[in-house]
Amino acid sequence: MSRLPSIGDRSATRLAYHLVYRDKDLARSLSEALLLAAESVQFCSRCFALSESDLCSICEDTTRDQTSLCVVEKPIDVLTIERGGGFRGLYHVLHGLWSPLRGRTPAELKIRELLARTVAEGSLVREIIFATGATVEGDATALYVASELSTRVPEIKVTRIAQGIPKGGEVEYVDDITLARAFSGRSTLS
Amino acid sequence: MSRLPSIGDRSATRLAYHLVYRDKDLARSLSEALLLAAESVQFCSRCFALSESDLCSICEDTTRDQTSLCVVEKPIDVLTIERGGGFRGLYHVLHGLWSPLRGRTPAELKIRELLARTVAEGSLVREIIFATGATVEGDATALYVASELSTRVPEIKVTRIAQGIPKGGEVEYVDDITLARAFSGRSTLS
Repeated sequence: MSRLPSIGDRSATRLAYHLVYRDKDLARSLSEALLLAAESVQFCSRCFALSESDLCSICEDTTRDQTSLCVVEKPIDVLTIERGGGFRGLYHVLHGLWSPLRGRTPAELKIRELLARTVAEGSLVREIIFATGATVEGDATALYVASELSTRVPEIKVTRIAQGIPKGGEVEYVDDITLARAFSGRSTLS
Repeated sequence: MSRLPSIGDRSATRLAYHLVYRDKDLARSLSEALLLAAESVQFCSRCFALSESDLCSICEDTTRDQTSLCVVEKPIDVLTIERGGGFRGLYHVLHGLWSPLRGRTPAELKIRELLARTVAEGSLVREIIFATGATVEGDATALYVASELSTRVPEIKVTRIAQGIPKGGEVEYVDDITLARAFSGRSTLS
């Protein structure tokens, strides 16, 4: 238990004690659920998000906007964006970012699969939206993949979600780089 | 001293003790500087930023871009944006935001002065950039003033700095509203 993220030795002991001493039923049902999850959760063969079947529920949902594809770093980003509910298109999970410092090359990411999806016969994709983080790796990956896409599928619009002031942010407290990006990413009002 | 922001009673006592017991010279020079500042710092008659003369140094600097006007809430925002160094135009300080909950109406803001500046004969302003915070008041004020401007000076472009993911932000940890604004404010990657 102490190998779980943000669970220290003391918390792990307390949790383990609770499960074996106070609530053996919870221990049993948790055991079953974990085994089931470990065996049934795989990656969607199309977008590489978490899925319980070959195609995930988002890829299978034909009512979603088939013309917009949102590119994210990792499966949990799909859950975050879905929670917001504002995006109704499809996803593509890269499973990492280009990070020379951590020895990750673009070849390890699901970029070939992204290109294959967008050039495939019958592909309806008109816009690819990069929703990678506002980090060095997020920037580098978005720019690299965008340039790969622009040569292969020049007719597809490639965009990136805005970097700027977060909700509730005041100009006085925003860092210089965020402010510079907010200025360069300004949009027309009304 | 304890009436200064973020200085509690204990800190105030310590500071006062230092000034009167350990460093009377500092006490004297601080006293002079404070008096000088209080008497000489006023508002620029054109942009309403802090200034030591009728026109502030930014308004007097003819090498700055006279076609861009950045609208901010308060004088310190000018200092924050200047520190970043990315913006080289002029400013206009509203001295507040439209906030019905706090009983602040648009009439109390320097909006009339902003309109006067932009319609004045010889005005070179081509773009007005709203750099108000990503708060309810910041949104309301930007939209209100933008609509006032669009009827009076329809030829001037009115923009707003981007709301989105701040520097270093990862999609997983961004709140839903910021994410929605980042999506709607997305820009084209070349």
